[in-house]
Amino acid sequence: MLKIAMGQMEVIPGHPDQNTAKILAMIAEAKEQGADIVIFPEMAVPGYLLGDTWEQSSFLKDCESYGQDIIAASAGITVIFGNIAVDWSKKNNDGRVRKYNALFTAQDGKLIQPDNMPYQYVIKTLMPNYREFDDTRHFFSLQKLARELGTTPDQLLSPVTVKVKGQHYRIGCLLCEDGWGDNYELEPFTLLGRHKPDFFVNISASPYTLGKNDKRNRVFGAQAQQAGVPLFYVNAIGLQNNGKTIYTFDGSSTAYNAQGHVVAVAPEYQENLALIDMGQIDKSKPVDKSTEKDIAHIYRALHYGVKRFLENIHMKKVVIGISGGIDSAVAAALYAKIIGPENLLLVNMPSVFNSATTKGLSQQLAHNLGCQYMIVPIQQSVDHTVDQLEHTPMTYLADDSISNLTVSSFVTENIQARDRSARVLAGAAAAFGGGFTCNANKAETTVGYSTLYGDQSGFLAALADLWKHQVYALAYYMNEEVYGREVVPQGIIDIVPSAELSSAQNVDEGKGDPIKYPYHDYLFRSFIERWEKAAPQDILEWYAAGTVEENLGCAPGLVAKYFPTAADFIADLERWWNLFCGMAIAKRIQAPPILAVSRRAYGFDHREAQNGPYYTRRYRELKAQLLER
Amino acid sequence: MLKIAMGQMEVIPGHPDQNTAKILAMIAEAKEQGADIVIFPEMAVPGYLLGDTWEQSSFLKDCESYGQDIIAASAGITVIFGNIAVDWSKKNNDGRVRKYNALFTAQDGKLIQPDNMPYQYVIKTLMPNYREFDDTRHFFSLQKLARELGTTPDQLLSPVTVKVKGQHYRIGCLLCEDGWGDNYELEPFTLLGRHKPDFFVNISASPYTLGKNDKRNRVFGAQAQQAGVPLFYVNAIGLQNNGKTIYTFDGSSTAYNAQGHVVAVAPEYQENLALIDMGQIDKSKPVDKSTEKDIAHIYRALHYGVKRFLENIHMKKVVIGISGGIDSAVAAALYAKIIGPENLLLVNMPSVFNSATTKGLSQQLAHNLGCQYMIVPIQQSVDHTVDQLEHTPMTYLADDSISNLTVSSFVTENIQARDRSARVLAGAAAAFGGGFTCNANKAETTVGYSTLYGDQSGFLAALADLWKHQVYALAYYMNEEVYGREVVPQGIIDIVPSAELSSAQNVDEGKGDPIKYPYHDYLFRSFIERWEKAAPQDILEWYAAGTVEENLGCAPGLVAKYFPTAADFIADLERWWNLFCGMAIAKRIQAPPILAVSRRAYGFDHREAQNGPYYTRRYRELKAQLLER
Repeated sequence: MLKIAMGQMEVIPGHPDQNTAKILAMIAEAKEQGADIVIFPEMAVPGYLLGDTWEQSSFLKDCESYGQDIIAASAGITVIFGNIAVDWSKKNNDGRVRKYNALFTAQDGKLIQPDNMPYQYVIKTLMPNYREFDDTRHFFSLQKLARELGTTPDQLLSPVTVKVKGQHYRIGCLLCEDGWGDNYELEPFTLLGRHKPDFFVNISASPYTLGKNDKRNRVFGAQAQQAGVPLFYVNAIGLQNNGKTIYTFDGSSTAYNAQGHVVAVAPEYQENLALIDMGQIDKSKPVDKSTEKDIAHIYRALHYGVKRFLENIHMKKVVIGISGGIDSAVAAALYAKIIGPENLLLVNMPSVFNSATTKGLSQQLAHNLGCQYMIVPIQQSVDHTVDQLEHTPMTYLADDSISNLTVSSFVTENIQARDRSARVLAGAAAAFGGGFTCNANKAETTVGYSTLYGDQSGFLAALADLWKHQVYALAYYMNEEVYGREVVPQGIIDIVPSAELSSAQNVDEGKGDPIKYPYHDYLFRSFIERWEKAAPQDILEWYAAGTVEENLGCAPGLVAKYFPTAADFIADLERWWNLFCGMAIAKRIQAPPILAVSRRAYGFDHREAQNGPYYTRRYRELKAQLLER
Repeated sequence: MLKIAMGQMEVIPGHPDQNTAKILAMIAEAKEQGADIVIFPEMAVPGYLLGDTWEQSSFLKDCESYGQDIIAASAGITVIFGNIAVDWSKKNNDGRVRKYNALFTAQDGKLIQPDNMPYQYVIKTLMPNYREFDDTRHFFSLQKLARELGTTPDQLLSPVTVKVKGQHYRIGCLLCEDGWGDNYELEPFTLLGRHKPDFFVNISASPYTLGKNDKRNRVFGAQAQQAGVPLFYVNAIGLQNNGKTIYTFDGSSTAYNAQGHVVAVAPEYQENLALIDMGQIDKSKPVDKSTEKDIAHIYRALHYGVKRFLENIHMKKVVIGISGGIDSAVAAALYAKIIGPENLLLVNMPSVFNSATTKGLSQQLAHNLGCQYMIVPIQQSVDHTVDQLEHTPMTYLADDSISNLTVSSFVTENIQARDRSARVLAGAAAAFGGGFTCNANKAETTVGYSTLYGDQSGFLAALADLWKHQVYALAYYMNEEVYGREVVPQGIIDIVPSAELSSAQNVDEGKGDPIKYPYHDYLFRSFIERWEKAAPQDILEWYAAGTVEENLGCAPGLVAKYFPTAADFIADLERWWNLFCGMAIAKRIQAPPILAVSRRAYGFDHREAQNGPYYTRRYRELKAQLLER
């Protein structure tokens, strides 16, 4: 009976040489194991998130050339793999050569042409161009090709027929999005199903986001059941990025039988060659769906993402500025696990505003981790900067008049933050032979509660796609499950979040950040993660209807607790909306890359322009009504 | 005879209220002037570059509501304008509500339906999704709609018939890209032309880039001539951005007569209501095409772009760190012209490595401009930082062993750069009540020849889309044409470019940057601005063929001058390619927004991933051959 190997491999974006070497090794392994067919992910040769590298002809030719090596290695086995396909005789809309996101089927050194296709490969039909995806920028779709050929996609969508052990198999081959098709004009899965393939193959390059795998199992399981044939989903592992946003690819390649049950799942974030015997697939017991908590998935994504990112940029040592607060503590615990405490330098940088409490908690954290530790006070440097700025004469050369700058306490707050990061941490990291981290969470990132070139800086913002409540959940998870002991001191979990940049932020007096996380985490989430993004008009309508907490998904009673009057509610809403659409965008433009775990991470998934805040006419009317009451 | 008013207006992205107020005012003015038809740009109500603001339903409804105001204002006049159109009953591919980039024609308070359309508006057919454009992410096209309706675009593409002074006019209405159509499957202009409209209207939201207007006059002139009817191109002015890249919209709205001659051009970057009498249009003399030098256009784009950007972010005062080099000097001369010398603070920040020469030139520049001036030495602070890093004990808490960091001279170079920007300039800017600039040029930006949180920082990188030779050209242009006197001292133009961060960069000994601008400007340009982006393989093939200078467009003889052997050439090529694909991307991710003047500015126009350098198989073969010779 047919044996199918699912080649869940790490795809290294932009490095066809390494990917091809891996594919060739896995083909050899699949042959050894007696596989008849081996399947590799979408874009397994070039990688998927490459920016405009697709505009380099020499790169495209290189991918074609490595593709030939893979085809040549298909003696005695059928190899299904993703690669870029180029039609050098035609043009894309941008005037450059036409490219297809393609699936190749090779056997005995030759390509097998899909039944009704004019090309020797299957072409991706549906081109995602939402969220972080940009397929239409680079690739020509089967739909467009069909139109050009004067036919329809369903005429071209056809199985690939392979002969194995004397028997013909009709394989329904799809690429990633083609298996979903929710909101498109057509559903390739359904169209292809009309040809009654013996089984489906979906090769994917699908980044991890929280909850994605549950949804995929529902959709793909139902499809397999409906068609009454098995479906093999083969996804890549690895780390790919589009500059601003970094994605982990979790693999989780899955085989579904004709009943739609999951019969095999490759482990997350591990290369894996799973062999499925088609004779046994209907007898296989359904694989238990994971009952793991979300935070376990998030931790695994963060661990893998940070580890691979460090390897990619050849960074072995890391410096973290620790304040005694939760974000830097969680970052420290995470990095210590990844690079080892000997390669982690924690630096506490007190000024006159830092309490003995947080200094002590910092020290305790460092002790718990057993890492490198330094205390670098910043007061002398901050005083020197303020002194220099205030006492250096400023001459107006039009009339040679002299004046002096005045440094306000607010300006001094930011001087402290920049002194810590751009002076101490950047210098210490360079001397230590590594980089320093940005520990911002998603709530701070939303409203730019940070200082540019201060705590907003670093080589990577690993926690910037986590809301504050997720950062706390991660602290508990690491203490309980990862370390099995209290690494992040309970005192750090319990203390009020505070920047400690002035006496107004004295933690010992219970003073801290202006962000009330139990409410604002959820308010801010509605700005960016909600399906139809919420804007002040929506939120004010909910306020008028008394459904704010319900719509935001936060605990009930918070609106009444924090905002006694409509005027308070509106002032708070406008304060943060103005920041979200204003200074926070300026800061995000210059922020470090963010590791994505949610749907809608900042950066390339949520595109934004520095256009300033806006309030609709309806909002202004509602506001006037509410304030009049 | 028909009188047509071309409403070249500033479109403020994301602010339908302000845009509608402007449109209403211009409608009133057009009526007063006796116009029969008044035309406004594409997306005149919402603006065009809005990021994912398109996903806010309340914003879409607001645009619809303001659109109603414009329709209501069309009593006694025909108003053509661009706005978003929403079909609330249908979905886009991303599952959100379906949106069209639409052209509305209103008369006497009612919309006029295009002859063959099921909607009351014209829908954009061609969706640019190359370079900085992302239309397919947000808007549903006429092509897709035609497919859904079971028809073809040419059935739907039809004139809008309006009745003016008792006579019917059939207007061929197009949106922006629809007038080009070079590489698309269909050409809306040609299809629409078959209906023999009385004249064409093209409403646009077309950002300025060098050379664009010349090309447009060729294309649109030829189209008008071919169709034998006039064409009115109405473009917006203003400043729009997608976060990383900022675009000026130059307007340059143009009327072409039936002979394809330019008969009227609105001034660049100015609001303008030009009235064209259709009775006179064929008798009009062709307007002389501009013979201005490129640098004049660039200066105008920079001046307008910086001015509007400062206004948008409410910044009135600016601090510039000046080194005595050309980039900061040109930036200073530019900003002084825009905000006035009294609002410009130049800061010279010498360390022990700065020569008397550059200190003197800095002073001279400041005197020439008559601005505010400060000298803030950084040596004491740099020494303090190095001392603190080297003498603070670092404890390894696993065994309580103590060690010390060592600060190398290279690390000290970057400490200087960060001390200048993140400590002095950021502090001085905050105290002065403004921001500080990033003065990087495009060559430095290409290879990351800069320090992150040092000279790479600032609120805007106004010169980062200019190659070094363009920066010099701008210096001459400003001295000669803008100021009419030597504002940028000749000494600054003549001195060797140098960062002066170590004794190895001593300008008095003629030492300076490792970038040889007369060659590297053009090498780097080929990486990003060339149509099919050049990569090492292409460049090595040119080297083997002896055609490097010809392909790069630089002066002949430079390759032989700089690189005696193939090994030298290859080492240089790989050095910069490794940086371009490596550390420079990390720096660009955190760089300030860039003002675009070229086709292919860094940021959103040139998308990139942090994937590290790659060399194709063919490159490695060629390299081996060349090194063997």
